[in-house]
Amino acid sequence: MPQQVASLSPRPLPAILLVSLIPVGAWLLIRPLLDPLPPLPAFHAALGFAIFAFIITVYLVPALGPTFVKARLSGRDLLKTYDTPIPESLGLVCASVYILLLILFIPFAFSDVFLNDYEVRSRHGIVVAEFPHQKLAVYLSSLLSLMIATLLGFLDDVFDIRWRHKLPVPIIASIPLLMVYYAERGNTNVVVPIPLRWLFGVLVNLGPLYYLYMSLLSTFSTNSINILAGINGSETSQALIIALSVIINDLLYLPWPFGFRVPLHLLGGQVELEFGGPWSAGMAYGSRELVERHLFSLYFMLPLVGVCAGFLYHNWYPARAFPGDTLCYVTGMAFAVVGIQAHFSKTLLLFFIPQIFNFVLSCPQLFGLVPCPRHRVPRFDKDSGLLYPSTAELKKAPSALTAFILEVFSALGLIRVATNKETGLPEVTNFTILNVFLVRLGPMREDTLVKVLISSQIAGSVLAFGVRYGMAWLLYDGNRR
Amino acid sequence: MPQQVASLSPRPLPAILLVSLIPVGAWLLIRPLLDPLPPLPAFHAALGFAIFAFIITVYLVPALGPTFVKARLSGRDLLKTYDTPIPESLGLVCASVYILLLILFIPFAFSDVFLNDYEVRSRHGIVVAEFPHQKLAVYLSSLLSLMIATLLGFLDDVFDIRWRHKLPVPIIASIPLLMVYYAERGNTNVVVPIPLRWLFGVLVNLGPLYYLYMSLLSTFSTNSINILAGINGSETSQALIIALSVIINDLLYLPWPFGFRVPLHLLGGQVELEFGGPWSAGMAYGSRELVERHLFSLYFMLPLVGVCAGFLYHNWYPARAFPGDTLCYVTGMAFAVVGIQAHFSKTLLLFFIPQIFNFVLSCPQLFGLVPCPRHRVPRFDKDSGLLYPSTAELKKAPSALTAFILEVFSALGLIRVATNKETGLPEVTNFTILNVFLVRLGPMREDTLVKVLISSQIAGSVLAFGVRYGMAWLLYDGNRR
Repeated sequence: MPQQVASLSPRPLPAILLVSLIPVGAWLLIRPLLDPLPPLPAFHAALGFAIFAFIITVYLVPALGPTFVKARLSGRDLLKTYDTPIPESLGLVCASVYILLLILFIPFAFSDVFLNDYEVRSRHGIVVAEFPHQKLAVYLSSLLSLMIATLLGFLDDVFDIRWRHKLPVPIIASIPLLMVYYAERGNTNVVVPIPLRWLFGVLVNLGPLYYLYMSLLSTFSTNSINILAGINGSETSQALIIALSVIINDLLYLPWPFGFRVPLHLLGGQVELEFGGPWSAGMAYGSRELVERHLFSLYFMLPLVGVCAGFLYHNWYPARAFPGDTLCYVTGMAFAVVGIQAHFSKTLLLFFIPQIFNFVLSCPQLFGLVPCPRHRVPRFDKDSGLLYPSTAELKKAPSALTAFILEVFSALGLIRVATNKETGLPEVTNFTILNVFLVRLGPMREDTLVKVLISSQIAGSVLAFGVRYGMAWLLYDGNRR
Repeated sequence: MPQQVASLSPRPLPAILLVSLIPVGAWLLIRPLLDPLPPLPAFHAALGFAIFAFIITVYLVPALGPTFVKARLSGRDLLKTYDTPIPESLGLVCASVYILLLILFIPFAFSDVFLNDYEVRSRHGIVVAEFPHQKLAVYLSSLLSLMIATLLGFLDDVFDIRWRHKLPVPIIASIPLLMVYYAERGNTNVVVPIPLRWLFGVLVNLGPLYYLYMSLLSTFSTNSINILAGINGSETSQALIIALSVIINDLLYLPWPFGFRVPLHLLGGQVELEFGGPWSAGMAYGSRELVERHLFSLYFMLPLVGVCAGFLYHNWYPARAFPGDTLCYVTGMAFAVVGIQAHFSKTLLLFFIPQIFNFVLSCPQLFGLVPCPRHRVPRFDKDSGLLYPSTAELKKAPSALTAFILEVFSALGLIRVATNKETGLPEVTNFTILNVFLVRLGPMREDTLVKVLISSQIAGSVLAFGVRYGMAWLLYDGNRR
């Protein structure tokens, strides 16, 4: 039908985007080279890189779509009436743009590109007189992990690795992190929560268990985004909101010398109101190390937001491009990288509340207590154009354990159990968060469902901030990491 | 035909291989952990990694072949009578094994994994008391470049990028090298050859041109292997011989404390004959920096030899697996990496004599003076089972320049010019080294031709060593780099 083909032509790109964003991005890259030097020049540059990440992705994805279709990297949209092949694995484009920009960022983050004389730098703040080789090694090992995640994600798309086989794949991608951490004799101590200190003391050295923890974190963050998928924009928007949450958390630790100067003289005042300053503001309480860690995180998260936002433009309902596993792998790995390298993995996990909920919810199906169909995405009803919860049929009478689980989940309102009229066996809605939304809120359009998902992700992040900064004193004392 | 299918079943792997090699490899990995510590423990470990690289590749390639065919990564062998699909792009497996082993090698190269107390180490040689963060950064940036080369090579295989577009692709892969070199304010001075010193002085600072030189070196080493391809085993054997040549060159710079101890006491002598020792033997003349550079090169080249040898076992005539562009990209990048990072790029280029010859030879076709068919591989004659030079037909009467070129190349015996009876236009053999062999030596079997190619590569390396160590004094003084 011509109408459908038209609706699937690449989403138009307003020229105003290019015209307005390029100067802003360029200014952010040039500003740190000019006097007076901003206190955190690399942060300016990272913002500039994020804007270019957005522009490049938003233009490259529709341009490369046909190439992907031609290379048979395409699929049909299961929740639509049309059969038009949609380019798949476009996450590869996102990942390539992302990693390439992070590589080009190296001189901004680690060289004295901004200044010629070292003295001014050491007076000003973040840049230290001695070259930070150690930080560069950490940065490079993170890039290597991201590269491996990209390659493995793309291999997954090309070779279609089975679910059970690919679960541990992110562990391979975390090896560079672990190796560099080990070679540099990284700290494997963790601070024990107050209620457990009578047992373990204040610090406990996890040793090899710390490495296990790091690789499990990568596995979790990668797979948890991957299994909360199936509707247009779901993977990309999750990644986008988690990245934004991490950024907000990072900003809390930054010195804010700019922006906090209130120009009272414009109002006729005599003095200017000014507070903050390098190393003395924010949650870092003057700790240069904490500021540097969160700057490191910002370097990785800002361009990720740019890339995800650019891709979401084309991945939004009705999707013109699919992310494939590549996007889930690379974004999941990026979160694991910043959580590990900037030492806020516990805070990071708080931003995954919807994913954790979805994972716990999925367990009965993942572990075979309830039959698990290959696709658990909601069911599309062509006539109404609405999504309904998809169901799994039990093939035999439920065991006592399964019956108990069905009863509990059903009582909690997470699933709906019906009885198949022909077989007399129970038929349950699938155990995913998307189906829970449809069970609780009733059938809805695909774009409404993704908005509900986005809202729940935002609500999760709000809750996370509450827990992290409102309740952490229950578990940890002032010296929080 | 059943006979052909049988001939293409995976080449059998003698169990004796596994039984005999695993203990040797394991011993080389364990030996550095035992007292007395060998002088270069990481070198032992690199040898062990090379052996495991061979074993893993030789077993993984046939195991994964069917998966590649299923993912439509296969092609038919153009120079055979059968049409059986041969798995293609298996270079991806080689590259993955290679890079993963290099990552696992990080603790061996950079940590004090071998020893607990620093004093013994600093007495013994290569390991220094302070952690070599800077070397680790260089190592990691090299791995990043290899990863990008792998990804780009695989993308080339999947998307089939056009020849003209992919020529500059290796420049992207060299960006991490350049960025880290720049961030660390790497040296951009080069020593001027003696005959030119009256003009430029002893040292000249190339500045940005040095970065151009580095990226062109990657482009050259990657593409020059890629265009000398087309017969079973050609790409792999080139890479193998160049890697072995680099290793021999590196070994010249190593201290040789082991192996030079002649056990005279076994023959009843009173004293032992012993010479050499860390930092005092070899071409390094006691320079620790030169030894470390060549060790760095060995860390990358030893496992590459393992991987290439393992793959050649299956890629040898009649090939059970094709390397794809991935292998050319990753091996070419590996050579560029060691040439740049260990500062022997001029010596490296000498090992590419056959490739340079092939490139110069190809120029008339690459630049459109002579028509260039899509495939320039030799022509297979089904009846005789022999390869003949393939030809290109001129579509119009040759220009004066083209006629001159044909005359010169023909007089040099590099091509054979015939006249097409129908059109009356010249028909020339293609301008590649493989066709030159067939023109000079007459038609031959495919496996004979690849042996001729291997011999020429070995002859080139022998010539290279002669030039490097016999004639370099004409251009450079004693302080050779």
